[in-house]
Amino acid sequence: MSARPEARGVQITARPITAKAFAPFGDVIETDTVPPQMINEGLCRRFSDLARFDQTGGRIAMSLFQAELREMPYRCNLLERHPLGSQCFIPMSQAAFLVIVAPDEGGRPGPASAFLATNDVAVNIARNTWHGVLAPISGSGLFAVIDRIGSGDNLEEHRLEEPVFVITTP
Amino acid sequence: MSARPEARGVQITARPITAKAFAPFGDVIETDTVPPQMINEGLCRRFSDLARFDQTGGRIAMSLFQAELREMPYRCNLLERHPLGSQCFIPMSQAAFLVIVAPDEGGRPGPASAFLATNDVAVNIARNTWHGVLAPISGSGLFAVIDRIGSGDNLEEHRLEEPVFVITTP
Repeated sequence: MSARPEARGVQITARPITAKAFAPFGDVIETDTVPPQMINEGLCRRFSDLARFDQTGGRIAMSLFQAELREMPYRCNLLERHPLGSQCFIPMSQAAFLVIVAPDEGGRPGPASAFLATNDVAVNIARNTWHGVLAPISGSGLFAVIDRIGSGDNLEEHRLEEPVFVITTP
Repeated sequence: MSARPEARGVQITARPITAKAFAPFGDVIETDTVPPQMINEGLCRRFSDLARFDQTGGRIAMSLFQAELREMPYRCNLLERHPLGSQCFIPMSQAAFLVIVAPDEGGRPGPASAFLATNDVAVNIARNTWHGVLAPISGSGLFAVIDRIGSGDNLEEHRLEEPVFVITTP
């Protein structure tokens, strides 16, 4: 019970997201990772099959999330994971958003990492991966989300003992 | 063999897309159609389960399409349909795009209609529905696409005898 709880916590810097660095946690969906197929009489490039949708039971569905824009430094005190399915976030504006993830350590999240997604990428968080909630820092805050809908408890939450403060490099 | 082929054709006006008007052809994915669920400690509204993904065999996958912006009036001379799966287009910029569709008439497209999608909507074209190719007229031209990937012939094309010219109201 500190009088200045905000003075506690860990500061981490969000790294620009890359497919390689993010691989332990899921997929970065971008046009750089596969060669395109030309379709529509040469007027469209198709980059196929970029996310690993991974569901147990239920079905894959599409929803919209309208999230409030967050201010930096971003204070994160809650991580969650979805044991029954992956969750893919597709920004519907040219937004920047934070993706905070952590490895599992015996049923609890280990040390958190933060990534900054920009430049027209979507992010698919792997099933059962600890992550922070959707945190756009620019754009409209509107995202399409592809995740599992069905019966069963698909949400596990873990409140951090000390918050994580995320900053970005200038 | 006309010397002035562009003088032939049918002109149609793209109507603003609405879920009701588009219902025979698929889903309009927007935040207006269902009440939201508040998630993430009140900082995000979730509008759940807005598209009817409909696949025969194969699997639902995610791809990116980078389409060239089209000029108006838009000339459409090719419709296609996908007998094995629905196809969902999610704009990743706040784009406007044309959605040209037609009813089936004995294995060929009947008269085409055009819709203008704007204001942060995605569009899911129902399985086996005749439609024009992705035709953004503003924005970045980048779309996430959720459709079927798998074996089997999932593309049927029909070249129109006379082109359709699509205009928008001022």
